[in-house]
Amino acid sequence: MTETSISCPLPAPPGDLVQMAHGGGGRLMNTLLRTVFLPAFDNPLLAAAHDGAAFPSPARRLAFTTDSYVVRPLFFPGGDIGSLAVHGTVNDLAMCGATPTSLSAGFILEEGLPLETLRRVVRSMAAAAARAGVAIVTGDTKVVERGKGDGVYICTAGIGAIDHELAIRPGSVRAGDAILLSGDLGRHGVAILAARSELAMESEVESDSAPLAEPVRALLASGAEVHCLRDLTRGGLAAAAIEIAEFCRIDARLDEGAIPVSDPVRSACELLGFDPLHLANEGRFAAWVAEKDADRALAALRSCPATAGASRIGTMTRAGHGTVTLRIPMGAERALDMLAGEQLPRIC
Amino acid sequence: MTETSISCPLPAPPGDLVQMAHGGGGRLMNTLLRTVFLPAFDNPLLAAAHDGAAFPSPARRLAFTTDSYVVRPLFFPGGDIGSLAVHGTVNDLAMCGATPTSLSAGFILEEGLPLETLRRVVRSMAAAAARAGVAIVTGDTKVVERGKGDGVYICTAGIGAIDHELAIRPGSVRAGDAILLSGDLGRHGVAILAARSELAMESEVESDSAPLAEPVRALLASGAEVHCLRDLTRGGLAAAAIEIAEFCRIDARLDEGAIPVSDPVRSACELLGFDPLHLANEGRFAAWVAEKDADRALAALRSCPATAGASRIGTMTRAGHGTVTLRIPMGAERALDMLAGEQLPRIC
Repeated sequence: MTETSISCPLPAPPGDLVQMAHGGGGRLMNTLLRTVFLPAFDNPLLAAAHDGAAFPSPARRLAFTTDSYVVRPLFFPGGDIGSLAVHGTVNDLAMCGATPTSLSAGFILEEGLPLETLRRVVRSMAAAAARAGVAIVTGDTKVVERGKGDGVYICTAGIGAIDHELAIRPGSVRAGDAILLSGDLGRHGVAILAARSELAMESEVESDSAPLAEPVRALLASGAEVHCLRDLTRGGLAAAAIEIAEFCRIDARLDEGAIPVSDPVRSACELLGFDPLHLANEGRFAAWVAEKDADRALAALRSCPATAGASRIGTMTRAGHGTVTLRIPMGAERALDMLAGEQLPRIC
Repeated sequence: MTETSISCPLPAPPGDLVQMAHGGGGRLMNTLLRTVFLPAFDNPLLAAAHDGAAFPSPARRLAFTTDSYVVRPLFFPGGDIGSLAVHGTVNDLAMCGATPTSLSAGFILEEGLPLETLRRVVRSMAAAAARAGVAIVTGDTKVVERGKGDGVYICTAGIGAIDHELAIRPGSVRAGDAILLSGDLGRHGVAILAARSELAMESEVESDSAPLAEPVRALLASGAEVHCLRDLTRGGLAAAAIEIAEFCRIDARLDEGAIPVSDPVRSACELLGFDPLHLANEGRFAAWVAEKDADRALAALRSCPATAGASRIGTMTRAGHGTVTLRIPMGAERALDMLAGEQLPRIC
């Protein structure tokens, strides 16, 4: 559904570029809305042409989240900023145990952006939203001067429906919980790295960017006592595991041998000195579930195509400072820490 | 509540600047969250440290909206990007007839931004949110390279509760409806213009940036049949009146003599060749109400301090192409049109 070409768009005809006035509230902005956004995101709430969308609440409990997207380049193997802006926010809702229902989309456009590039991004967003079963019901456009904004930044927010009684959040994690991983790590980070031409690295790796609501639904439907879910974006598995452990002050042990990493990702990491545990993903998550339910939770994940490669990767061991220990093959152990900075900026 | 100084911050001590790694998902980002955002926006939902906020739905019907903020400069007389990012989104919810309850906040920070500037913006957001009675329950931070992003862009989205049966939207406007205006026009646009030092214009005008939920509540409590509400931001009163008229294909007549404009705004417009009807406002709105209820709707608005200067400015006359006619003093009339572009870019 997403476009994977990373070639540069052809030079746009004069007049088919974003101008400052496209953000000015006058005729040109009105035309941009009517010709680019409304047809792509077509739905009755958007068509009402109001300052916001009004609709019946989708459930008695809601989830609400937001993310901004500044990924560079805009198009990369396996996705683009548009599909990413849908998947990322849909996935944050799924991590709250919610079914995503409605998205908002704010665009910050750079003066001079070819409108065809914007149309391509918007088409990809619309396809990703349809695939994830959400509607883009309200939005906003701003334009900043040439040289600012890198073409397009997108900010999406989302509302999801929570129709169960579980409190899925870091504070619910308990000593003894099993830690599950939904599949192989690091493909998004490596795909972005390869798409940045300055690295002159060739790679067949495609981003794992994908919506996660379906496997989360399967997990919840299994009846397993799910304590926390976390998608493994910036900072990767390492940051997620450490944040959760530190928040609830429970130590954790991960088993490196159980963590799937594909051969091309492993090769890229060896070449560049990266650690797959810190690499960003956009379609992978970890689940903290009651030990007694670990097997059925894993079976539920493996029943979904997107998470067929799920595995159990560790355990929350005991109350402590929230130290995460990695057991490496041959039996040795090392403490895992977050990076001070980051391996790769602007991956989402 | 908002800070009005527009002086430059003092040079920051080395190390107290935003770095790329503040957006990287590692330790530094974690510290930024714990030391800047969480203390300022303090509430239990944010403190849960999750990918999103989960909470009971505030009503059976919801409003949902978003806006990005790229205003230049960040601080201006009467407000700053932080208070603006709260007021603008709160006001879009109010324009749906909703009581704002929850906001999300996404930050796109420029590498090198003094953290003290960010703290000042965040404090102003927190004060504006408290004043408007909303909680900032979820957020996100990204960092872009030096030279991009102009210090800080903010994207807020908001959820509001609709607890009445009215359908407040452009499609509800009818021929014969009275058009009310909540107060004087153009102060935000002139304040921004004056704050841009390159114009070398001195002015005492402060932005009208303010939350509008209270006057909207008073309007609804009056029992008046409210058909549509629209805040008069980019494009000003002119764009709002034309958009609504064109959407519902009903002609409108406005009476220029009934539209309040303060003397300093009028002087600035004469000096610079601007039209107050096209100037942006951030605390003014128009209301389309049933003719029979015009007087009590106006009385309800005038009972609130923020909209004490409300007036009736026109009428939706008859089905047509959606032409808006302005009756100017001495009895002449002219057709009003949206600007092709804009008078002033990046006012919000």
